[in-house]
Amino acid sequence: MTFTQDFVKGKSYHAWLPYKKMTDGTISQAFHLENSQGMESLILQTARQELTQGIQTLLGKVQDTTISIPLILGTISDAKLIKGQLDEGELLQALQKDGYLIQSVGNGEEKKIYLIGNSEKGTLYATFHFLRLLQTGENLENIKIVENPRNEIRMINQWDNMDGSIERGYSGDSIFYENNKFTKNLDRVRDYARLLASVGINSISINNVNVFEVETKLITSEFLPGVAKVADIFRLYGITTFLSINYASPIEIGGLETADPLDEEVKHWWNEKVEEIYQYIPDFGGFVVKADSEHRPGPFTYGRNHVDGANVLAEALQPYGGLVMWRCFVYNCLQDWRDRSTDRARAAYDHFIEHDGKFLPNVILQVKNGPMDFQVREPISPLFGAMEQTNQVLEVQIAQEYTGQQIDLCYLIPQWKEVLDFDTYAKGKGSEVKKIVDGSLFQNKHSGIVAVSNIGNDNNWTGHNLAQANLYGFGRLIWNPELSSEEITKEWVQLTFGHDSQVVDTVMEMLLSSWRIYENYTSPLGIGWMINPNHHYGPNVDGYEYSVWGTYHFADRDGIGVDRTVKSGTGYAGQYFSPNSDMYESLETCPDELLLFFHHVPYTHKLKSGETVIQHIYNTHFEGYDQAVGLKEKWSTLKGKVDSEVFNNVQLRLDRQIANAREWKDQVNTYFFRKSGIPDELGRKIY
Amino acid sequence: MTFTQDFVKGKSYHAWLPYKKMTDGTISQAFHLENSQGMESLILQTARQELTQGIQTLLGKVQDTTISIPLILGTISDAKLIKGQLDEGELLQALQKDGYLIQSVGNGEEKKIYLIGNSEKGTLYATFHFLRLLQTGENLENIKIVENPRNEIRMINQWDNMDGSIERGYSGDSIFYENNKFTKNLDRVRDYARLLASVGINSISINNVNVFEVETKLITSEFLPGVAKVADIFRLYGITTFLSINYASPIEIGGLETADPLDEEVKHWWNEKVEEIYQYIPDFGGFVVKADSEHRPGPFTYGRNHVDGANVLAEALQPYGGLVMWRCFVYNCLQDWRDRSTDRARAAYDHFIEHDGKFLPNVILQVKNGPMDFQVREPISPLFGAMEQTNQVLEVQIAQEYTGQQIDLCYLIPQWKEVLDFDTYAKGKGSEVKKIVDGSLFQNKHSGIVAVSNIGNDNNWTGHNLAQANLYGFGRLIWNPELSSEEITKEWVQLTFGHDSQVVDTVMEMLLSSWRIYENYTSPLGIGWMINPNHHYGPNVDGYEYSVWGTYHFADRDGIGVDRTVKSGTGYAGQYFSPNSDMYESLETCPDELLLFFHHVPYTHKLKSGETVIQHIYNTHFEGYDQAVGLKEKWSTLKGKVDSEVFNNVQLRLDRQIANAREWKDQVNTYFFRKSGIPDELGRKIY
Repeated sequence: MTFTQDFVKGKSYHAWLPYKKMTDGTISQAFHLENSQGMESLILQTARQELTQGIQTLLGKVQDTTISIPLILGTISDAKLIKGQLDEGELLQALQKDGYLIQSVGNGEEKKIYLIGNSEKGTLYATFHFLRLLQTGENLENIKIVENPRNEIRMINQWDNMDGSIERGYSGDSIFYENNKFTKNLDRVRDYARLLASVGINSISINNVNVFEVETKLITSEFLPGVAKVADIFRLYGITTFLSINYASPIEIGGLETADPLDEEVKHWWNEKVEEIYQYIPDFGGFVVKADSEHRPGPFTYGRNHVDGANVLAEALQPYGGLVMWRCFVYNCLQDWRDRSTDRARAAYDHFIEHDGKFLPNVILQVKNGPMDFQVREPISPLFGAMEQTNQVLEVQIAQEYTGQQIDLCYLIPQWKEVLDFDTYAKGKGSEVKKIVDGSLFQNKHSGIVAVSNIGNDNNWTGHNLAQANLYGFGRLIWNPELSSEEITKEWVQLTFGHDSQVVDTVMEMLLSSWRIYENYTSPLGIGWMINPNHHYGPNVDGYEYSVWGTYHFADRDGIGVDRTVKSGTGYAGQYFSPNSDMYESLETCPDELLLFFHHVPYTHKLKSGETVIQHIYNTHFEGYDQAVGLKEKWSTLKGKVDSEVFNNVQLRLDRQIANAREWKDQVNTYFFRKSGIPDELGRKIY
Repeated sequence: MTFTQDFVKGKSYHAWLPYKKMTDGTISQAFHLENSQGMESLILQTARQELTQGIQTLLGKVQDTTISIPLILGTISDAKLIKGQLDEGELLQALQKDGYLIQSVGNGEEKKIYLIGNSEKGTLYATFHFLRLLQTGENLENIKIVENPRNEIRMINQWDNMDGSIERGYSGDSIFYENNKFTKNLDRVRDYARLLASVGINSISINNVNVFEVETKLITSEFLPGVAKVADIFRLYGITTFLSINYASPIEIGGLETADPLDEEVKHWWNEKVEEIYQYIPDFGGFVVKADSEHRPGPFTYGRNHVDGANVLAEALQPYGGLVMWRCFVYNCLQDWRDRSTDRARAAYDHFIEHDGKFLPNVILQVKNGPMDFQVREPISPLFGAMEQTNQVLEVQIAQEYTGQQIDLCYLIPQWKEVLDFDTYAKGKGSEVKKIVDGSLFQNKHSGIVAVSNIGNDNNWTGHNLAQANLYGFGRLIWNPELSSEEITKEWVQLTFGHDSQVVDTVMEMLLSSWRIYENYTSPLGIGWMINPNHHYGPNVDGYEYSVWGTYHFADRDGIGVDRTVKSGTGYAGQYFSPNSDMYESLETCPDELLLFFHHVPYTHKLKSGETVIQHIYNTHFEGYDQAVGLKEKWSTLKGKVDSEVFNNVQLRLDRQIANAREWKDQVNTYFFRKSGIPDELGRKIY
């Protein structure tokens, strides 16, 4: 392992990992790895390297070993390591899959610190945790930390294409591919693996869910050697590699005349294909599948359903322990805007609910957090909890497709917290989404959380330096959904910027307020979609209003919103369990922030806040713009206190955010003033 | 000359030129060329070939020469040809530049027909005219036709890029370029030259006015041999070749540090460059220049004005007789939609008016027909007639960028007729645009009409077969602006489809109604721009409303339109001569079809038609859609009566037009119903 390129590439490249000697007194002790020999496992070797390198980086290469505390690194299965020091029985009970213990034993010169994983992956996670403790200056006296991940599958989806582009990528090109080949130098993939493993990610799919011509061949002998190389790198960091597949592969690369999942030849073809893949990658994770969605092929073509479609793949993968991640993002994307009876929000539930219990055990339905598509605000997908006998994972999007594209600051941990904490009432009170996707509520065989990546080959990975926090926070949150947004944010800020309290407070405040700020100046009250079509940046109030995408606000001179009630609308509200269904159904109890998602109301409708809808639109848009300006004012106070490259990166993006917020404010306000004719109560400038 | 490929490519490829033997009795006599020897000039050789080949095609190869009428082909300068038969003195007086005579002399077996040009080009035009007479079945007894073109410059602008794409092209790729080179086989360029010469076109610029990196090098030794080859072909048909140039050429290919037109090095560079070009193409026409327009470089960069900018080129071209076509499409394309004081419609006039009399004699200002950009309806540019001492040409767009993209039928001859017949009152009553651009009103040194081409490498040249009529009609109209739309249309239909009266009547009716139909279902009352941004097809009422392009309708819940009056608006109406300025200024006298271009009015404003604005919007949109359906019904009656390839081509496009018209109708009606709240008086379906 060499860090040369990291140092050349500077602080931004290193993100939250140890980057240079900490000279601010945060670390008052020295450490050394006592048992550096005998670690045969690749992952344990990685852990050892990360630990020694991390300590050297943070403490400086020359350490006074006379006062250095020994670190014992290993797994619970290495009994002699812990014998007489730790209680093996207690450990066996406390540590679950991928879990670990960090514990100090003895005092004074006898003191040692144990980093013990339930498995080698656990040991690696313990290592990164220990380094984090050093960086954040935690007290290591009598430390005893037991950690177990709440979610089995902790996964990243890359939407990378082999031409090097990234669908919805906002930070350069792919680190995996260029010119329809794998990149020659995979150092950057390794550095990415470090970042992911350091926050507990254990799975990755390495190509876009929209699988086009070249990418279809990733599961052929032309590209499988390349996939295997990438998988070798991720394996070092305990990360399992998946591929997105083209459902029409049996035709396109198999030479068959059909991809009908019930066709015997097709079944046979998939069986052989999977066997071939596992010859290259013995621990291959499985397939991510976008089928019958947005013009991608799928079982519907052959008169089959999603169960048929997924199970044929699952059967092929089952002998090897592989999984099928079957995406539920299925809707009519050629809707007629004149048709008010079709409701895209209903689609995933309507498509899948009847299939509960029919999928094979190694099929997992991958469900986006909301029923539409990663809008700044939408309700939680009613599919969560509705399919008791079916594995479900939650899919969120770290890439800021609709939330500012890593130009605007939009820290999404608070949004995901709301998703995870949402009580579905699937089994009565206490049926939060987090208990469904972690498998505990229904004891599902597989469970977890998946996110669309926000990284590319920009030097700082994420375009906007502060967008690194979304990647970091995603990993930390899905490891432990009970962590608060504040805890996660503070960790990231300290790891990234150190301990200056002004810096910490300012950046935390900026991050934690940013989602609401973005919501304020964009589309109001949960209605969504007032964004430029195709590229999804900047305002366009009617941009999706007369489109085929099922994305409408129905604003007229009197009011706005989509009636999704059972009583008079599309009935979408009825897809929730009671009392959520009743809460959304009723204008009185529907939360303000989702009002227009569920109800069509006059502009003069009074919100719970006491404002009318129209005044709320004006107020939030003026406020959101002022807040964007405020973000820059806050950041400006940090000049000289943060790395200048990072400072400039954020400063320039805040300028662009302010320009964007101004467009949103003025276009949205003007649009609704022209339509409603109702002036702003405060007489502010509307065009 | 071989017609092989034409026959392979069928009727559509041949357009309006002789294609096969006429067996319907239209032609009752035989003809032969009497004086086929001694024609040294290339253009006369072309004329002879076209005539003999045309006759052979129309009459069949074997002719009974005993009753064949001799044709005498030549120029007025060949005195012995006409001696004793025609009155040379009368001819010299009657024929002007490019003019010709077609005259029969003698009777019975003594009868001869003379095709005599004032110049060799005139002879070529006489040839095509004579063939047209045969095709349309004109009576050739005692025929005497004297024709002179009204406009000196009759020009086509190709917006072709060297990668093979065509900016605003709707009929395939370029016939000139592919893969950043000239196409190897230039046969198609020759066939295009025939089409153009047959309707009197005498000039062509062969690359896009937006001159990008590769195209900048067209004036270097890398590409000048290719330009010369193309010019050789066009020369055979009497067509002069021009190039569009990049104003920053002295920097980009000259290695200079500036393109400042007043810099001595820059002047010197242009002089040398022009000298070099004329070594390759001795009769090179000159430059077409889009400068300081839509992000193209120009003299503004160096603090210079359009006069400085154009004259440096004109000085270089003057010794060789070359021209500078300086486009007036100059406006602020980064406007803030909030800014109501800036009016794009004013821009060309405001930029150029002060420079009258300052351009060199070989500079010609090229002015688009309207002040905006080729909308389905806009007023006539107030620049026409406003610059008495400056050469002006009119620019129209045969390519249907905003008018249906050769998917929808939109026959533009009636629109251009309105432009040409518009009385500017520049020198009092009778100062029509046609008299300005033909140079007669102010005795300008140069004059004419230019159009953006609508052809590509589709087999039928124009995508939509009926769009051939726009190219044909353009040539015929600018040759003689006094021809009526009906005359031109009838010619084209007969040449293309023959003499079946049902076919002739139906196609004529379709063509002549089509512009109004397209206007009916698109943007109303002259306001324009309710079209999808960028690609410019299909409705998007607010698509340009909050943009940088200076293209707004200002519709709110009460009304719509742009106040361009002097009294309370942008003052644009004041750019016209009286009484036009007064006509547009006053709500009472402003024509209905331009009402919203000049005035912001309530939806309840009564038009001269008696309808309210809102009811007019509803009525025209329902009617326009019904008319589009009607076009298909009309066309369907011709099944079996026109070439089946042509029939199917048009039929499929009419289906697409109907779908497009439906979107326009429903989106526009819904938009305005939602905004105004005023129901359709007839209770028709609005969404």
